[in-house]
Amino acid sequence: MSLLVIGSVAFDALETPFGKTDKILGGAGMFIALAASNFVKPINLVSVVGGDFLQSDIAMMQEHGVNTEGLQIKENEKSFFWKGRYFNDMNSRETLVTELNVLGDFDPIIPESYQDCSYLMLGNLAPQVQKQVIERLKNRPKLVVMDTMNFWMNIALDDLMQTIALVDVLSINDEEARQLAGDYSLRKAAKKIMAMGPKFLIIKKGEHGALLFHEEQVFFAPALPLEEVFDPTGAGDTFAGGFIGYLAKTDDYSFENMKRAVIHGSALASFCVEKFGPERIINLTETEVQERVQQFVNLASFEI
Amino acid sequence: MSLLVIGSVAFDALETPFGKTDKILGGAGMFIALAASNFVKPINLVSVVGGDFLQSDIAMMQEHGVNTEGLQIKENEKSFFWKGRYFNDMNSRETLVTELNVLGDFDPIIPESYQDCSYLMLGNLAPQVQKQVIERLKNRPKLVVMDTMNFWMNIALDDLMQTIALVDVLSINDEEARQLAGDYSLRKAAKKIMAMGPKFLIIKKGEHGALLFHEEQVFFAPALPLEEVFDPTGAGDTFAGGFIGYLAKTDDYSFENMKRAVIHGSALASFCVEKFGPERIINLTETEVQERVQQFVNLASFEI
Repeated sequence: MSLLVIGSVAFDALETPFGKTDKILGGAGMFIALAASNFVKPINLVSVVGGDFLQSDIAMMQEHGVNTEGLQIKENEKSFFWKGRYFNDMNSRETLVTELNVLGDFDPIIPESYQDCSYLMLGNLAPQVQKQVIERLKNRPKLVVMDTMNFWMNIALDDLMQTIALVDVLSINDEEARQLAGDYSLRKAAKKIMAMGPKFLIIKKGEHGALLFHEEQVFFAPALPLEEVFDPTGAGDTFAGGFIGYLAKTDDYSFENMKRAVIHGSALASFCVEKFGPERIINLTETEVQERVQQFVNLASFEI
Repeated sequence: MSLLVIGSVAFDALETPFGKTDKILGGAGMFIALAASNFVKPINLVSVVGGDFLQSDIAMMQEHGVNTEGLQIKENEKSFFWKGRYFNDMNSRETLVTELNVLGDFDPIIPESYQDCSYLMLGNLAPQVQKQVIERLKNRPKLVVMDTMNFWMNIALDDLMQTIALVDVLSINDEEARQLAGDYSLRKAAKKIMAMGPKFLIIKKGEHGALLFHEEQVFFAPALPLEEVFDPTGAGDTFAGGFIGYLAKTDDYSFENMKRAVIHGSALASFCVEKFGPERIINLTETEVQERVQQFVNLASFEI
């Protein structure tokens, strides 16, 4: 089924204990689109870049089935840029540079050909921009999934609450869930957050897996214990892309199928961290994805 | 099958965000024995208490199927005492008082009736004491499980390494695994630790579940997301008790059955944290345990 993705397409510069990069391809929208492309095509992307963006990166995304009709190119401006450094445990990082550039006044224009999408993934962006996308669609998609982060809780909580009220699935990490709900218990926090609007809540816990909540049900998806986490950048976005891509492919958003989608998202994310930026998820085969999903089955299965 | 448990039987005084206690029943050996009693009886306990210990607590343990023939009572000494305070997140705590008392020169005497045990659980204690227990058994048990903590890594590493080399299953938490192996990656740490002797390694991650490693296999058991963690004291020991109790009952230490044992241990631990000390696990019915295990099945199961 048709999938619309909005999110940043940008440059990242990264420092990890394993090395550093100059400006490489980054952005939530890019990670989401490439991850989703393992399951469904085309991915209709809405985003914005500057004149400094590489035509080769656009071509690469197109080769992966990403429709870039909705990718605005502002020739006289610069692309969004983030530079960060990860500490030894890879669970904490510091931001060294953030240049909003074209994202500062991003007006998300939806091409006519993108209307009537069935699945909408709102990648991490200013919540009022995410809301605009919902409002600009003539028909509400079957399922709206939203990713966000604590940054917006700190500076745009009212906007964030308005947008959260409009979506079906919210995806945030554990600390963000605690902050948003004002409750340390994730079980209690989940109840409070679902009362804000979303019928489903995904709480991402990084190396500790992810929780999926719906009404009184809860599902715990493990994370694959990896020999090495090389670069965690984009892992959460890749998770979201695998999740929405699997749902769009199967066109089934029952709780049972959402569990499968969480596992597929987790599998994609486990690839993402193996190399810098999107390098690993650009070069994935269907067999590799299936084998990785099977590793999750082996990891989590038991019979009582 | 016959089960021998060694570990402290003691007094704890606790402060949590939910309240505080005076001296209440505590100790790794006590938590292990009571948890295991849900699956197998008798539990042959080796431990030591002082003259201040309560006869009513001994009677309670006996009513739960704990054989206290190996519980030394030193009338003129005092029981081991630990006082601690948990912080708001319940994941960190500070020790306020530690009085070794009778544990200071504990000589673990194995009653003749305890010989020929099939399953041995070495609760957290000085590693040279744990080693003495193995040496004093005329026949090696089928399976030796050892729990320990970072305290012994810091002050008795040589003893610890000698004891670890003798056991089949080691149970430690994630930070301890990283410290013991000198590797942040749990997957790599697990390999290094299994090279020290144990064929199986359990890495406990508290609210994030537990990992079971064996050769190239790995199993991830979730933790039940709870509305409230009231008091985490003894949760790791209760996990170990449920684990060894289930193995002793089923007399099967294949990897597949160890997975079930990890789930049963996790289920017992999820009860433990609901009330102060052993209060909740003292009053558990078989139906409650089965229902809780089923919650773990529901939590973790998915079909690809």
